Amino acid sequence: MREIYLDNSATTQCFPEVAERMRRVLTEEYGNPSSMHHKGVEAEKIVSASRHTLAQILKVKDSEIIFTSCGTESDNLAIIGGALASCRRGKHLITTRIEHPAVLESMKYLESQGYEVTYLPVDKDGLVEPAAVEEAVRGDTILVSIMHTNNEIGAVEPVAEIGRRIKAKNPNTLFHVDAVQGFGKARIYPAKMGIDLLAVSAHKIHGPKGMGFLYKSQKVRLVNLIYGGGQQNGLRSGTENVAGIAGMAMAADMLYRDFDGETAKIRGLKNAFLEEVERFNEELTSKGEEPLIVNGRTGDDSAPHIISLTVPGVRAEVLLHALEDKGIYVSSGSACSSNRPHPSQTLQAIGLPRPYWDNTIRISLSGLNTKEDIAETAAALREIVPFLRRYTRH
Amino acid sequence: MREIYLDNSATTQCFPEVAERMRRVLTEEYGNPSSMHHKGVEAEKIVSASRHTLAQILKVKDSEIIFTSCGTESDNLAIIGGALASCRRGKHLITTRIEHPAVLESMKYLESQGYEVTYLPVDKDGLVEPAAVEEAVRGDTILVSIMHTNNEIGAVEPVAEIGRRIKAKNPNTLFHVDAVQGFGKARIYPAKMGIDLLAVSAHKIHGPKGMGFLYKSQKVRLVNLIYGGGQQNGLRSGTENVAGIAGMAMAADMLYRDFDGETAKIRGLKNAFLEEVERFNEELTSKGEEPLIVNGRTGDDSAPHIISLTVPGVRAEVLLHALEDKGIYVSSGSACSSNRPHPSQTLQAIGLPRPYWDNTIRISLSGLNTKEDIAETAAALREIVPFLRRYTRH
Repeated sequence: MREIYLDNSATTQCFPEVAERMRRVLTEEYGNPSSMHHKGVEAEKIVSASRHTLAQILKVKDSEIIFTSCGTESDNLAIIGGALASCRRGKHLITTRIEHPAVLESMKYLESQGYEVTYLPVDKDGLVEPAAVEEAVRGDTILVSIMHTNNEIGAVEPVAEIGRRIKAKNPNTLFHVDAVQGFGKARIYPAKMGIDLLAVSAHKIHGPKGMGFLYKSQKVRLVNLIYGGGQQNGLRSGTENVAGIAGMAMAADMLYRDFDGETAKIRGLKNAFLEEVERFNEELTSKGEEPLIVNGRTGDDSAPHIISLTVPGVRAEVLLHALEDKGIYVSSGSACSSNRPHPSQTLQAIGLPRPYWDNTIRISLSGLNTKEDIAETAAALREIVPFLRRYTRH
Repeated sequence: MREIYLDNSATTQCFPEVAERMRRVLTEEYGNPSSMHHKGVEAEKIVSASRHTLAQILKVKDSEIIFTSCGTESDNLAIIGGALASCRRGKHLITTRIEHPAVLESMKYLESQGYEVTYLPVDKDGLVEPAAVEEAVRGDTILVSIMHTNNEIGAVEPVAEIGRRIKAKNPNTLFHVDAVQGFGKARIYPAKMGIDLLAVSAHKIHGPKGMGFLYKSQKVRLVNLIYGGGQQNGLRSGTENVAGIAGMAMAADMLYRDFDGETAKIRGLKNAFLEEVERFNEELTSKGEEPLIVNGRTGDDSAPHIISLTVPGVRAEVLLHALEDKGIYVSSGSACSSNRPHPSQTLQAIGLPRPYWDNTIRISLSGLNTKEDIAETAAALREIVPFLRRYTRH
């Protein structure tokens, strides 16, 4: 059976070129970057060149890229490491109600350590009001953490305006952006946007799992979370994952080389799917059936790759498995936290009525998807949804 | 030029089969283990099967294996996570003077947090006296951390006896073993040896960098260091590095499948090299030249793969580069910490005279080395050492 993978916000297929490059690094350029001989220098050069590639994409300095083991570690290092380093200036932090658990759980940890956290609400589209952020910033606010792109409904937060307002109100407040869903899908320039810290994960951009990085402005001081041999200026001890680093940089380079074309392609697929939903909804409405609901914004001001779809009357898990039977893979809520039974924080926060929380699937695209994937998925929904509605109503 | 890689304690070449398996996981079995559909289940099965493979090797339960991003993170999670979880029972820890920085720096961090650490000395062979450990254990001792195999001179610590004595004196004291250099080279059975926590790194056993695991006895409670989606029972959040996990388990399986044969081969190479040194020393002595010194024990009670060689009168760095010119890669001191300018803690601790600290190289072998590697390296030393001695004496 042909597989149609529409769960790219959970993880992506590694680009074959990237995986092949990693295979070569693992077997040929396998030195320890800390070693003084040729094999070590060769490995160190791969690390440096990769750092340069990523820094160029963000238009920042090479020395501002810290390699980590994942997006979660990047968020932890930014938030906990940033708070611990700034604790003499205050103990207040700000975030939103729709962040990834990597951010929310880091905040909870800090609360347990005596820090105070303000959780800002979002509007029906999942957007944070920049004026509300500015208002929340106080003299003792040490860090604000706001995601670039929401992983469940694809809301793109106005991070540039938020950055500007934070710095205007309190230039000492650090601004951290969780860009795990945004990097690779948007042009992000931290220096221009007032962003001090930016978390990225490789496996969301067709790179390997177990790899991420944190952009850290050279002006920012962090406390490291892992202690050891002092690699990466002491900010992240442990032998560098050379193959993973090379793979992540190569994947990022492939995405950003033809960024406009790549993004336009993915958004084209999203728009095609939205049109199919519209047509399907017309049919449903004409039959007196409840239409599907697309949550959040859907235009160019939304993420090009994420669609949050509520199918009233159909349990997301049932729909997910019915689609799976046709080789179509989607997500019910956020897969990064699908081993937790809690209802989606984002769907609650945007005010989606409670009965719909469990009726919502996420379809997330990548440049490896095709028009055929979209057409087949739409056809499958047209077939499955009426069937499941009849079935579940008995 | 043919490469002779003798720096296997810094890092190893990834087995080609392992790298190829990882390439396939990255491009084909790329699901997120947390996803509920087939791609997720497929990935979760890889994680579970890998966990089982590693658990079988250690003769422990599958649920006692926690995947981490490296040996350093494993040590941090064991020591810091163990201490934080046990802080109500006491604030005293014990370790040795010859541990890896991942252990020593974790201890320093805990000292900064009000914990007390006892650093035990070692004898001239780098061995800790079990009776000294027992004597140091107090009612408020929450954790003892002792490495299995020293990375610089290959001393194999009597961890089983130490474990027995710790538990006899204080059954509540946790025993952590840094087995980064020992796993793959020795049979280690934590449950039988009184070991509660055991840190392992994949890239020292022909697996990938950026991957490690921690054995944690089910009786032990740890505080997690990374906060997020709650993967691995909350002990290590972040999407699992499925390819890395599969690669690490496969590499471990390859090493332990013919463990006796593999170990005998490596020890045979070590013994052949030691014989060459002996012959060379006879020549040197007969010419009135100072002989080379092999540090620590060299018999079956030493690590099969590590040789610490002091060449009086020759700076290690100069010798390293002279060997490098012949395609032979060795280390001067421990490569994991070679970006730190401090003199080797281990060489100091074993009482090697100060002038020799900077005259010592480490040769570390793997099963991928050959008899020819040994013969060529010995021949190179015979040629280079007299030349460098003449040169550096001018």
